[in-house]
Amino acid sequence: MTTGLVTIPARRGKAARVSAGQRVRVINTHGTQVVDAWAFSAEDPSEWMSMEASRAWFMKLAPAVGDTFLSNQRRPILTLVEDTSGCAHDTLMAPCDAPRYRLLGVTGHHDNCRDNLHAALAELQIAIPATPPSINLFMNIPWTPDGRLSWGEPVSAPGSYALFRAEMDLVIAFSACPQDILPINGRAGRILDAHFAIE
Amino acid sequence: MTTGLVTIPARRGKAARVSAGQRVRVINTHGTQVVDAWAFSAEDPSEWMSMEASRAWFMKLAPAVGDTFLSNQRRPILTLVEDTSGCAHDTLMAPCDAPRYRLLGVTGHHDNCRDNLHAALAELQIAIPATPPSINLFMNIPWTPDGRLSWGEPVSAPGSYALFRAEMDLVIAFSACPQDILPINGRAGRILDAHFAIE
Repeated sequence: MTTGLVTIPARRGKAARVSAGQRVRVINTHGTQVVDAWAFSAEDPSEWMSMEASRAWFMKLAPAVGDTFLSNQRRPILTLVEDTSGCAHDTLMAPCDAPRYRLLGVTGHHDNCRDNLHAALAELQIAIPATPPSINLFMNIPWTPDGRLSWGEPVSAPGSYALFRAEMDLVIAFSACPQDILPINGRAGRILDAHFAIE
Repeated sequence: MTTGLVTIPARRGKAARVSAGQRVRVINTHGTQVVDAWAFSAEDPSEWMSMEASRAWFMKLAPAVGDTFLSNQRRPILTLVEDTSGCAHDTLMAPCDAPRYRLLGVTGHHDNCRDNLHAALAELQIAIPATPPSINLFMNIPWTPDGRLSWGEPVSAPGSYALFRAEMDLVIAFSACPQDILPINGRAGRILDAHFAIE
């Protein structure tokens, strides 16, 4: 079954159920939009994709094609099976949240990935007790040999994608990151749609 | 007030309350023992030290003296104010847990940092809804320029320490990591005590 293209609306989140063995194609439609992503066991959403357990499994700062992400119970949850974006994905940085924008000088409301995650899950009647670290797809966070990090501009081509295989029945959640202060969505801070398909 | 030296028993955890402004000295007594560490707001233990928010704040893979760790509400929680261990601390790897040892081929029970954390908090009548990523003190995880990680042997001297200032009233928790299969506690896999003091 293919769902056809589902829109992750600019500045918003979207979640969907995926069966084990299905593939999730996440499309960098405009080439500049970071998509924060999470995955949860369909049986028990307190079992979620863990960046810290995944790094300890594939032994890299960022995944390569063939690498499998583990849940916080160390079970395979997603495998990156194809990638035309150059695997420019970040496992290090927290998804943005309301207090993050206050630290960046924003007064009043700012859309954010944490709220988007919980809202997207709520549409599926799912509640989780904390906000897990995300994988930040198409987000360019270079590191130096001495371990310094920086907020890079996007480097992937429009229409490039990352294709994941579901290793268990799961719920996948995305947020089209509304970060328009740092340059991670391009220096102009234009926040755009992205898309995914379940295949 | 100084507590004097508190033992983190080999293979076990220990938690303690710390007031804002107090300092916590964590001592690498034998030089080879990794100490996983967590911090929680005393007011609300669902606010915890976040490795992913902290990296996005100090913009490094590993902290240096002067760097402040943030909570998952992006509030300052601990600052590293002095360090004689060479700052060889890891923010990337998940604390070990029972399923981790099953992946490493262990059958039956193996002590682990996740269980140690929850047991140490339970001694203070504190329960938390998930296991946050830890900072793994004195744990040597080298990275290469292309982002590959490895399990290094310990590099800090016996008696070296990391000194943290509490930026809020908090609960600190430690586990003398029982990992005796990988070489992170030394190739011989000897698991030893470590110590801390609240000053």
